[in-house]
Amino acid sequence: MKELKYISILGASGSIGTQTLDIIRSHPDEFQLTAISIGKNVDMARAIIEEFAPRLVAVAEADAYEKLRSEYAGKVKIVFGEEGLIEAAAFPETDIVVTAVVGSVGLVPTLRAIEAGKTIALANKETLVTAGHIVTAAAKKHGVSLLPVDSEHSAIFQCLQGEKRNRVEKIILTASGGSFRDKTREELKNVTVEEALRHPNWSMGAKITIDSATMMNKGLEVIEAHWLFELPYEQIDVLLHRESIIHSLVQFRDTSVIAQLGTPDMHVPIQYALTYPERLPLANAKPLDLAEISTLHFERVDFERFRCLQLAYEAGKAGGSLPTVLNAANEEAVSAFLQGRIAFLTIEEYIERALERHEFVKEPSLEEIREIDAETRRYVRSLL
Amino acid sequence: MKELKYISILGASGSIGTQTLDIIRSHPDEFQLTAISIGKNVDMARAIIEEFAPRLVAVAEADAYEKLRSEYAGKVKIVFGEEGLIEAAAFPETDIVVTAVVGSVGLVPTLRAIEAGKTIALANKETLVTAGHIVTAAAKKHGVSLLPVDSEHSAIFQCLQGEKRNRVEKIILTASGGSFRDKTREELKNVTVEEALRHPNWSMGAKITIDSATMMNKGLEVIEAHWLFELPYEQIDVLLHRESIIHSLVQFRDTSVIAQLGTPDMHVPIQYALTYPERLPLANAKPLDLAEISTLHFERVDFERFRCLQLAYEAGKAGGSLPTVLNAANEEAVSAFLQGRIAFLTIEEYIERALERHEFVKEPSLEEIREIDAETRRYVRSLL
Repeated sequence: MKELKYISILGASGSIGTQTLDIIRSHPDEFQLTAISIGKNVDMARAIIEEFAPRLVAVAEADAYEKLRSEYAGKVKIVFGEEGLIEAAAFPETDIVVTAVVGSVGLVPTLRAIEAGKTIALANKETLVTAGHIVTAAAKKHGVSLLPVDSEHSAIFQCLQGEKRNRVEKIILTASGGSFRDKTREELKNVTVEEALRHPNWSMGAKITIDSATMMNKGLEVIEAHWLFELPYEQIDVLLHRESIIHSLVQFRDTSVIAQLGTPDMHVPIQYALTYPERLPLANAKPLDLAEISTLHFERVDFERFRCLQLAYEAGKAGGSLPTVLNAANEEAVSAFLQGRIAFLTIEEYIERALERHEFVKEPSLEEIREIDAETRRYVRSLL
Repeated sequence: MKELKYISILGASGSIGTQTLDIIRSHPDEFQLTAISIGKNVDMARAIIEEFAPRLVAVAEADAYEKLRSEYAGKVKIVFGEEGLIEAAAFPETDIVVTAVVGSVGLVPTLRAIEAGKTIALANKETLVTAGHIVTAAAKKHGVSLLPVDSEHSAIFQCLQGEKRNRVEKIILTASGGSFRDKTREELKNVTVEEALRHPNWSMGAKITIDSATMMNKGLEVIEAHWLFELPYEQIDVLLHRESIIHSLVQFRDTSVIAQLGTPDMHVPIQYALTYPERLPLANAKPLDLAEISTLHFERVDFERFRCLQLAYEAGKAGGSLPTVLNAANEEAVSAFLQGRIAFLTIEEYIERALERHEFVKEPSLEEIREIDAETRRYVRSLL
């Protein structure tokens, strides 16, 4: 008899969260939703409760929490804030936790889920960026799998199936180049928020779409890949590939290269993380048709043009507390850009200033990481 | 302690044979040559004996056999003809037999090697084309692995590592289109042997280079893939890809596609077959640089333009004795074309005529296959 897998989704109302719900909906014999977290979207919480009957709903915003608590009193357990998020992550019946919250708020709940022995479907890359040494050590200690949901890391993970790590020469993360890949630095000076949010290939949330335009997203992915696949930065390359059809590649020591391809659809890596090591049919999927696509393009990355990617490599290689600073400064700067308070190129400027003034800590504890994160955010806000 | 693998090479003086010798030369702690077969190239036999000290040399041509036998009397065992080829294939100390002879002459020695429990590194695709049901049944019976050496099948085989067969939606063999891919059928009427031998991507033997130009090579590969991966023809596609960088792809049932890529270099699949499941560094290899290559192209195959591919699919689907007829007629027609006796488009015409007049046998025995093969060759020669 096939056993149901029980799923918690942290960040159920976001882009990854709703696509995870699509997967659960299309495989009712495989998956059951046990717990979710949402921010403040009461309507969506109601819809999810009606359709999937989760037993726990964690709410980040106070008004939304009060509203849902009164509506579902005695029917669904409604919990609040970071404590609530942790309760959803460590929910007893849950097998797999999909960590799809945005930003470093995902860190502590992910750690609690690991300690509770849950498999992690990792869609929150900031978790590994900001505390990779702590999270990977905890996963090892508790014998827990960290399954990537990012399309690039899922691609690498799929290419590594049946292979041993010592055969890997390097991994190559592909990058579309984002909304502004054809713009010069001069042209970047006056781009608007609306232009930045128009990603050519992927439909994603606002923060990650801006991160794609700066290529900080690829930088965070490089750091995430370093931790996930236990490879030094010298073995992690980035390749510009505007069509986003080859999602990433692994080059082995015999020069053979294995790649994972597909139409840009996040349902594929999400479902793979949930079904791994199995593969199931994907509902409403559009199979890849290379003859129709006809041409794939590849270019080297210009690290001067994409300054954020350079900063991420430098912070990653230096290690210690620097990736935490990189990530926190980036979150605040992107937030300020989305609010129309700073220009596009000021994002990288603020990140660089935050990195420069930071006093390096070699192996920061979780407490130090939280302090450095908060302190960096205060500093970036002080620049506004 | 690592154990040496002992290797027999059938067809040591050909293109695959000499590249296999390169691999053995560069990994003296991994591989040792025990036996070879050659056709009539006495100089090359001498060079191989001096360098690799094989214990058995099978020679196809009588004069060359006599010459080598007198030279190496008391030092190396020199054997003759098909019996000799079988002795090289079933050589007692041999672990892996590289079957790199050209044409259906490879069939019986391969079967004898399987019966002797040798791992088969299969570079002779005619073996599976002409007797797939017998060879795969023998391999199963004797618990022997058939490891593909063809770049396309090696690619599929690599993409299937760590995966289960029931997750496969289809396999996609890529095809460069050969020397004449940009010519119309009208232009094909007067092409010369020299033009046909100029393959744009791969350096290979004459027979396979002509088979690339007609795309019969891809047709034979489709039939080979059918047997090797136990898939119906409906799950085997062909995709035109002129750069020969993606060597083939597997589409799984979740629409995820895994591909194997590399610079066109047969050393990679040969070495993989010898080291499988391990991967070792490859001497003098040129790693893939997609940014330098810049663009990859894909097109649908035109089955009317490439009539031989259509004939191969039809013969494969009908099964029974038809693939034997297809293969034997093709060998004779290509040989006649290489001798300047027939025009390029007459190759497909003769194959079609041989297929049409043949009386179908559902499950031909080895003896019937040999008879049908010989009878087909006589018929095609009678057309000259």
